[in-house]
Amino acid sequence: MSDDRAVGVFDSGLGGLTAVRELTRLLPREEIVYFGDTARVPYGTRSRETILSYMRQDIAFLMTFDIKALVVACGTASTAGLPLLERDYDFPVVGVVEPAARAAAAATRSGRVGLIGTEAAVGSGAYERALRRIAPGLSVRAQSCPLLVPLVENGRGRRGDRVAELVVAEYLAPLQAGGIDTLILGCTHYPLLRDIIADAMGPGVVLIDAGREVARRLSEVLSEGGALAGRAAPGPRRYFVSDSVEGFARRAALFCPEAVDGRVEKVEMDIAAGAFVLPPET
Amino acid sequence: MSDDRAVGVFDSGLGGLTAVRELTRLLPREEIVYFGDTARVPYGTRSRETILSYMRQDIAFLMTFDIKALVVACGTASTAGLPLLERDYDFPVVGVVEPAARAAAAATRSGRVGLIGTEAAVGSGAYERALRRIAPGLSVRAQSCPLLVPLVENGRGRRGDRVAELVVAEYLAPLQAGGIDTLILGCTHYPLLRDIIADAMGPGVVLIDAGREVARRLSEVLSEGGALAGRAAPGPRRYFVSDSVEGFARRAALFCPEAVDGRVEKVEMDIAAGAFVLPPET
Repeated sequence: MSDDRAVGVFDSGLGGLTAVRELTRLLPREEIVYFGDTARVPYGTRSRETILSYMRQDIAFLMTFDIKALVVACGTASTAGLPLLERDYDFPVVGVVEPAARAAAAATRSGRVGLIGTEAAVGSGAYERALRRIAPGLSVRAQSCPLLVPLVENGRGRRGDRVAELVVAEYLAPLQAGGIDTLILGCTHYPLLRDIIADAMGPGVVLIDAGREVARRLSEVLSEGGALAGRAAPGPRRYFVSDSVEGFARRAALFCPEAVDGRVEKVEMDIAAGAFVLPPET
Repeated sequence: MSDDRAVGVFDSGLGGLTAVRELTRLLPREEIVYFGDTARVPYGTRSRETILSYMRQDIAFLMTFDIKALVVACGTASTAGLPLLERDYDFPVVGVVEPAARAAAAATRSGRVGLIGTEAAVGSGAYERALRRIAPGLSVRAQSCPLLVPLVENGRGRRGDRVAELVVAEYLAPLQAGGIDTLILGCTHYPLLRDIIADAMGPGVVLIDAGREVARRLSEVLSEGGALAGRAAPGPRRYFVSDSVEGFARRAALFCPEAVDGRVEKVEMDIAAGAFVLPPET
């Protein structure tokens, strides 16, 4: 059994490209349709109500491609109430929370797990709830890191960037003081800061990459459902954004160029229809 | 002659509060209706086309209050094509570019003026065009500072914040090397970093606060048109936001608490109408 329909990948902006990179490595035959809501990014500073309303519009756009599964490659969106939304769709919806929480629970030896994410993701408590459901004895320390997304999107995630190193050290200090041995990177931007985070935490701490774990989970879900792609060649990729293609390409080139290997197109918000649509010429 | 109708103040989010603070000082009798598009902030990283489309919706909302003048208290929005929009409205529209450019041209002795702003504001070239029109001989050095808005919105604008000091020093270094004697703070968030910027530039450099200049310009415009408010008491203030009231209040308290002295209300985007509207219960 196989299913050559596309996998939809949705993100508030560009962070989901790190998940696309992992999907491409793990499931190269899958067709991927990516939507980044770059006209309304970031979601991490917004209220839950606004995030849910934006997500419904974003998913509706991806559904116009007859997708067989949806990856919510955004820590903020995944924590804003994915269980609520899942019920509304008849394809599997895979968010980053559950897979990352499972990986963290499997990795920790001390039982002390750390979490970093956007304000909205940390404030939701979704990671803590998932971790306690999976392993009730765990202790969780969470830290919101509002400056990390702007740093990454400005191409400042590399070792040697003094500002990034200073900001990361400051955010991680309370987690270090808490003696964690496992740290969930709860935002898909954070793998781009991986070296700096690893240097700050030291070799005794396992880093859990939410984007990598969501790719693994999708692989399981498709495999269990007999829905892996059957084609022999690499799957095609299409990228849609709600703000300009140039802005997306420029930022993506700064931080995750290898994840964009297909055409990038802009969608328009059709106000009367309340939906994102492809412009007429496409 | 007097006119007690409200002045509309529009910003992409919270930065315009620094302009409200100046308006309150200079024109305490004016009624102010503020709209911050917090569900779609920031504008500074977006394309011009998207910014203009958002601005039209924002202004349409403020027009439901029968405003006598509009202040565009946002460097990004003011540079995105205000002259284009002005023609569409029959009340005065005052942006930050022209007043700040006039103040800078009046202040400089060396003829070397610096500008800092968001990516969109600097990329537009609007400040340079205004400066060259006002004083053709000026030399202008511009620097986009994408990390300053996230820093300010996280309450990190105060002297002694090492991250803010490091980031500011880095952005300002090329302007210092260029020997400027006047610096336009081309984004309404930047007055909150004023001490750090002043320390970095030294006492020989005049800082031009775009929010203060736009308040002065509004005062002139209303005065010339015989449209200053005639009431004896301080004018009422009303604040509208497109994302949650709590998020706005929390951030405003971090960075400009004295500018919010009235009721804050959330507006909804009515998709079918393509417009922001007050929720039914109001």
